[in-house]
Amino acid sequence: MTQNNNKVVLVVGAGDATGGAIAKRFAREGYIACVTRRSADKLQPLLDEIHAQGGRAYGFASDARKEDEVAALVEDIETNIGPIEAFVFNIGANVPCSILDETARKYFKIWEMACFAGFLTGQAVARRMVTRERGTILFTGATAGLRGAAGFAAFAGAKHGIRALAQSMARELGPRNIHVAHVVVDGAIDTAFIRDSFPERYALKDQDGILDPAHIADSYWFLHAQPRDAWTFELDLRPWMERW
Amino acid sequence: MTQNNNKVVLVVGAGDATGGAIAKRFAREGYIACVTRRSADKLQPLLDEIHAQGGRAYGFASDARKEDEVAALVEDIETNIGPIEAFVFNIGANVPCSILDETARKYFKIWEMACFAGFLTGQAVARRMVTRERGTILFTGATAGLRGAAGFAAFAGAKHGIRALAQSMARELGPRNIHVAHVVVDGAIDTAFIRDSFPERYALKDQDGILDPAHIADSYWFLHAQPRDAWTFELDLRPWMERW
Amino acid sequence: MTQNNNKVVLVVGAGDATGGAIAKRFAREGYIACVTRRSADKLQPLLDEIHAQGGRAYGFASDARKEDEVAALVEDIETNIGPIEAFVFNIGANVPCSILDETARKYFKIWEMACFAGFLTGQAVARRMVTRERGTILFTGATAGLRGAAGFAAFAGAKHGIRALAQSMARELGPRNIHVAHVVVDGAIDTAFIRDSFPERYALKDQDGILDPAHIADSYWFLHAQPRDAWTFELDLRPWMERW
Amino acid sequence: MTQNNNKVVLVVGAGDATGGAIAKRFAREGYIACVTRRSADKLQPLLDEIHAQGGRAYGFASDARKEDEVAALVEDIETNIGPIEAFVFNIGANVPCSILDETARKYFKIWEMACFAGFLTGQAVARRMVTRERGTILFTGATAGLRGAAGFAAFAGAKHGIRALAQSMARELGPRNIHVAHVVVDGAIDTAFIRDSFPERYALKDQDGILDPAHIADSYWFLHAQPRDAWTFELDLRPWMERW
Repeated sequence: MTQNNNKVVLVVGAGDATGGAIAKRFAREGYIACVTRRSADKLQPLLDEIHAQGGRAYGFASDARKEDEVAALVEDIETNIGPIEAFVFNIGANVPCSILDETARKYFKIWEMACFAGFLTGQAVARRMVTRERGTILFTGATAGLRGAAGFAAFAGAKHGIRALAQSMARELGPRNIHVAHVVVDGAIDTAFIRDSFPERYALKDQDGILDPAHIADSYWFLHAQPRDAWTFELDLRPWMERW
Repeated sequence: MTQNNNKVVLVVGAGDATGGAIAKRFAREGYIACVTRRSADKLQPLLDEIHAQGGRAYGFASDARKEDEVAALVEDIETNIGPIEAFVFNIGANVPCSILDETARKYFKIWEMACFAGFLTGQAVARRMVTRERGTILFTGATAGLRGAAGFAAFAGAKHGIRALAQSMARELGPRNIHVAHVVVDGAIDTAFIRDSFPERYALKDQDGILDPAHIADSYWFLHAQPRDAWTFELDLRPWMERW
Repeated sequence: MTQNNNKVVLVVGAGDATGGAIAKRFAREGYIACVTRRSADKLQPLLDEIHAQGGRAYGFASDARKEDEVAALVEDIETNIGPIEAFVFNIGANVPCSILDETARKYFKIWEMACFAGFLTGQAVARRMVTRERGTILFTGATAGLRGAAGFAAFAGAKHGIRALAQSMARELGPRNIHVAHVVVDGAIDTAFIRDSFPERYALKDQDGILDPAHIADSYWFLHAQPRDAWTFELDLRPWMERW
Repeated sequence: MTQNNNKVVLVVGAGDATGGAIAKRFAREGYIACVTRRSADKLQPLLDEIHAQGGRAYGFASDARKEDEVAALVEDIETNIGPIEAFVFNIGANVPCSILDETARKYFKIWEMACFAGFLTGQAVARRMVTRERGTILFTGATAGLRGAAGFAAFAGAKHGIRALAQSMARELGPRNIHVAHVVVDGAIDTAFIRDSFPERYALKDQDGILDPAHIADSYWFLHAQPRDAWTFELDLRPWMERW
């Protein structure tokens, strides 16, 4: 394992397989993985796994929709652990619903979680990175960030918003040596949710028909590792057999 | 003037030149123009103008960000005036700001006004239209709805969100005979704001270098008038001399 | 009928329903319709129809893939009939084929017809229009111009090429007062080909499920008629019930 | 160096820095680099460099615009060297020109070189890969493949065409386990051409303001190495300070 001293990767939304895999990937490269979700106790298995592999990791209970919690989180990490060199925003889930039945509360909640929280955390981290004139900011996107669909008004709205944020940040912060990128995940991921809710889809795992979180994580690492003369803003990820 | 009995066009956000021009355009075709903005008294000149031309129009003070006010507005119009055959959502203004300085409050407010209000009003109107199996829903968009830019994180986020909403609604409601469309306005509009704040830009008016709201309104009418075998989802509008 | 003196609309590719409908639409507005296809005798029914409605129209046998024929055609019209105020490029048909089986000859032919001919004719007309500092150039596009698909390599390539041409011309010639636009036709059109080859699709005509060429033509006229402070570069057209 | 037996990477258009860098990158991984350009003698320095690093490489004079030469090339490699596991199409250069002055010959030539040759070579290679049910096909694209611009009608047309080809092939061949991807290179590359023709641009090299071909090559290798449950179709590459 390379030692990277006290370089930190902050993964906001490490509650699912993808966020966890990204934390593990960066930890293997010597980064200190700081991972968050709303309730910290669920993070313990991830922390244990990283520690067992000789990595360093800390878990934080933090609500990314609360500006003061976000500020405190970033302050705590930067003061007590190390500089955040890479940041991954990985929150957001779809709950499809007809536009006629969608509730205002749910439409708001999906945006607050998948877009507003990205603004709050991305901004808080960017403010630190610009003082050091370096850093990587990665947003997890989805196909719904590229086009709307029946039943997807809320999710597509939030994912379009996060893509607009990523693009706006990339254009403003690139010239300040901050690498901002957006990953379009297009397909089912190998998670407990897919296994339990979409067993037929999950059965495609035998044919590599669903995304392995570890392979998604490899792409995040690839983006972070790019030299600055050849940065990628956006890449898509999908299984070979996915229709698109 | 064609008589259209009691067909209503509802223009939410008729505070600016564009919304007003659209109301006038539909009123000329015999539609009853119902126009809203947060404070109703500012609507009087628009109502007077429509009345002077022999049209019918009503003004409403209504905050489109409040679900109950939206519900009451639509109920009032549908009960006391007539069926909403066309709906135009026309709220949203940009106040550029570095991502480093943007406040959480402003980021939220811009989204609430330019996107969330579009969801609330679009949904409330759509619920009526599906019972009649006809209607037109038009959203005013901007270039920021297609790509982000430095200083545009909040506005681009909201405009991306409204485009995702329009696209999701179009795909769900098209097959129910509701025509949903999105207009990308790309350029300065002939308004008091541009005249006072960007005099050099405004001076291009002599060369047709800024958009005439009446011409924007013609495109909205064109979209509404399209027969259903040849509907447009999206069109852009810009002055001939605009760089893009 | 408005008299437009000797204003000419040139429709290259008037062999199908769409090109013919556009010619009739402009002729109704007083334009002299100059229509072309490779063999002129098939144009007679269209000319007869326009004449019967009191319009003026001329047919030309012209191969739009031949630079000298294109030059001669434009010279002939400009000298003997009138200035080309509006130009419509409407050639191109899809013959789907697996990328593994596509022949080099067919891949080339589809591009030559649907893209190269658009370059030759669009350029020849633009050279005249810039001397007058006015004019409209309209390209018929397709969904395949926006994205590729299995079996569509040749057609998508040609349609992407024509869209790139339209966009490049719009950006260069807009500031010279030439309005260049691109229409994305997305869906089956009411033609003999669809009637004979896709009877189930054609049966949707009763529900307005296929595009009426006359309605497509209305959109072309709308684009031509736009005042220059509010020009549209691109609009899409599809039946209300089309999946997209 | 990993031994990959006789796995071949075929780089069509290895005349410039990018194609050469890709060949070297794959050779370092143990692949036999087969590189082509129209005249073979100019390939010698590249072959020498690969050999000096212990790699294996062969040069071919081959005109990718000629179907029979392409067929012979692929036959020769597959018979005498090894199976083409990765293919890179890397031809195409821009020579900007006003749409009014562009010659038909040059418009055609640019397409023939940057698009038609991609069809001929991509198809020839794909036909072999499908028999083995594996392989990677990579196309070098440009920003002009995403949007047209003044002076770019020919180049944008060709680059749009190659992107349409890549997308059509990806959608057809993905489910046959062939990974097709498209790389959007956005910015000046560190080449003799840029050094000699755009010295001010080239001076940005000191600040990493132009793309290093070796770093572009890393992205091609990354795409080839992706496991099939997480394939990328498209990624962009640009220097940190590039405006976009």
